[in-house]
Amino acid sequence: MSQPIPRDEPPPAGRAADLAHMRRAVELAARGHGTTSPNPVVGCVVLDASGRVAGEGFHAYAGGPHAEVVALRAAGERARGGTAYVTLEPCDHTGRTGPCSAALLEAGVARVVVAVGDPNPVAAGGAGRLRAHGVVVESGVLAEEAERGNAEWLTSVRLGRPHLTWKYAATLDGRSAAADGTSQWITSPESRADVHRLRAGADAIIAGVGTVLADDPRLTARPSGDAPDPGAGRRLLRVIVDSDGRTPVSARVLDGGAPTLVAVAHDARATELEARAKELGRLGADGAAEVVRLPRREPYGIDLHALLAELHRRQVVSALLEGGPTLAGSFVREGLLDRVVGYLAPALLGEGAAALGPAGVTTIAGIHRLELEDVTPIGPDLRLTARPAPLKEK
Amino acid sequence: MSQPIPRDEPPPAGRAADLAHMRRAVELAARGHGTTSPNPVVGCVVLDASGRVAGEGFHAYAGGPHAEVVALRAAGERARGGTAYVTLEPCDHTGRTGPCSAALLEAGVARVVVAVGDPNPVAAGGAGRLRAHGVVVESGVLAEEAERGNAEWLTSVRLGRPHLTWKYAATLDGRSAAADGTSQWITSPESRADVHRLRAGADAIIAGVGTVLADDPRLTARPSGDAPDPGAGRRLLRVIVDSDGRTPVSARVLDGGAPTLVAVAHDARATELEARAKELGRLGADGAAEVVRLPRREPYGIDLHALLAELHRRQVVSALLEGGPTLAGSFVREGLLDRVVGYLAPALLGEGAAALGPAGVTTIAGIHRLELEDVTPIGPDLRLTARPAPLKEK
Repeated sequence: MSQPIPRDEPPPAGRAADLAHMRRAVELAARGHGTTSPNPVVGCVVLDASGRVAGEGFHAYAGGPHAEVVALRAAGERARGGTAYVTLEPCDHTGRTGPCSAALLEAGVARVVVAVGDPNPVAAGGAGRLRAHGVVVESGVLAEEAERGNAEWLTSVRLGRPHLTWKYAATLDGRSAAADGTSQWITSPESRADVHRLRAGADAIIAGVGTVLADDPRLTARPSGDAPDPGAGRRLLRVIVDSDGRTPVSARVLDGGAPTLVAVAHDARATELEARAKELGRLGADGAAEVVRLPRREPYGIDLHALLAELHRRQVVSALLEGGPTLAGSFVREGLLDRVVGYLAPALLGEGAAALGPAGVTTIAGIHRLELEDVTPIGPDLRLTARPAPLKEK
Repeated sequence: MSQPIPRDEPPPAGRAADLAHMRRAVELAARGHGTTSPNPVVGCVVLDASGRVAGEGFHAYAGGPHAEVVALRAAGERARGGTAYVTLEPCDHTGRTGPCSAALLEAGVARVVVAVGDPNPVAAGGAGRLRAHGVVVESGVLAEEAERGNAEWLTSVRLGRPHLTWKYAATLDGRSAAADGTSQWITSPESRADVHRLRAGADAIIAGVGTVLADDPRLTARPSGDAPDPGAGRRLLRVIVDSDGRTPVSARVLDGGAPTLVAVAHDARATELEARAKELGRLGADGAAEVVRLPRREPYGIDLHALLAELHRRQVVSALLEGGPTLAGSFVREGLLDRVVGYLAPALLGEGAAALGPAGVTTIAGIHRLELEDVTPIGPDLRLTARPAPLKEK
């Protein structure tokens, strides 16, 4: 547990206090990262009427209590006349839990400070209900930081598709394999362990059939051989983009160890794949397989927008795109990437497959610009995190 | 000026004092970086007999006074019975200046602490002469840091060839140009300004004729249009690797603005180039041009070892390799790179020329491993500095 603002110090006041408490709420929210899907991450800090911290909470997993409820429980009667800091507008609907707006009213909170408004039309309206009952509601405090912490969920709700992270590993000269196709290992064990952490935070991993044919990867969140995490209830969906249904039925992604979705074109011949999926179903395997047919679209063979819409329907909030320079290039061309995480090995190859295939750029003016968000050494390698640059205003 | 150890504080003693004073000497030495070639950078701190700093100095430019002489002058009579910290073994020969060993003896210094021994057989022997006269000499203090500060000069003396830095600019997917060959600008103005600083620290810039034909660059140390630095006496040599003598006589590298060496194969037809060189000589142009013939060797067309030996004869201590993925790949294959400086733009292209061409690697086991030495944000870009990884001991 990181440190809350100590209770025995005089409480800070005004704008500075609002920022400090909201920053703490954003920190708390981050603890739910990777386990709340398809829900957002939310953090909450409740002060008593004198401005002292009375309770804290965060949303830990889908179906579990909301952050506000956890913080209000901790505060008890001290919440009356106090202030609640919430990273996301309190919900106003009864889902698996009751509406947080009602809980805040019942606890007698006098003021609610919100970072980001709820873009979900089903759950929104909490701020309005609170105001209607005389609660002071302020919104937009530390909004940018709270947005960043909830980027996956906000993308999912606003765009109706999963938040997409492209992960690649390459040398300084941008190659992901040597001339003969060998690529084990360009990056270090430390980087590969970091990739597993990245996978564990996603709802789905997407790879092209080319990667399946070349490397036969497991595409699971933990290195093979590791004991499963007993607390990990979430199932990572493996998604294979395979327009012509070429995934071998013996592929590791069809081993039944985790759920798998093979996306083929509407007109693909995939009889064997469909039979294997049925067989896994009969076996009651841990991970069922499913073949889904999507519109064919060149050059990639499958309409990638339709693929993401399909994943959205399956409550995939965040997906990790791995393996396949051609597939990655297609997502880049379609403007569907939200984040790029590159593991750069300090090494040179000079020949071999590039990390990224054709992305619709013919001349330098068409370059896809990003902004670096983070640079972290991982063992001997470097991990770069970047996001598409916002369009320049004229 | 950075801060010396304050004179009014009690002097630190023993090993800690040695390290602190040598660290200061290494700092002082760095001030000469880029202006001392073909000499090394050297820094010196002189203490009085009680251990207080009495004088400091560094070697500022070739032909100017050596670091020890500067520091001893500042110390005057206070040097008697004192200690001198020198980043490089004091010279024992009379070149443009007298031997530093003699100066130290004359000043009456009782102890000399050296970081790195002089590998230059002409100048070495200073430590021996000092010991012969009863001076205590200790060597190897902070040797690694001092080595790093003098990497260019030490490479030049030890290997008999210039220290070679390969500079490239690329996207995150390792491309230096778009599919149609356009490349202006992948990196930011800040990165391009940084490249000019890099050039200003080198004695020569090497580029392939392909770069000359494609971009017609000036290859000077300052952006065109900038006023020349009045203090910059050094002339950056432009070196074009051009086995078949294809450099156009109208190329900007033959504009007479700076000296240029065109390296052609021994059997190349280069009549026009040689005529242009003569013409520049007649004009008394600021930068003369010269055509040098070197042994032909495939695949690059010129023996790169012979090229570096030629540059060494011309007192080129450090060279910057720019422009030409093919040329860069050839230097990598030959094991001739000492440092890689990459400017990475957070951008994606998906197609276009790779930053590095064939480097003799066919399978992953042959990968050229480097070690990251520095990672610095330059504007929106990232500058990576790496050196070849030392061979693993069994």
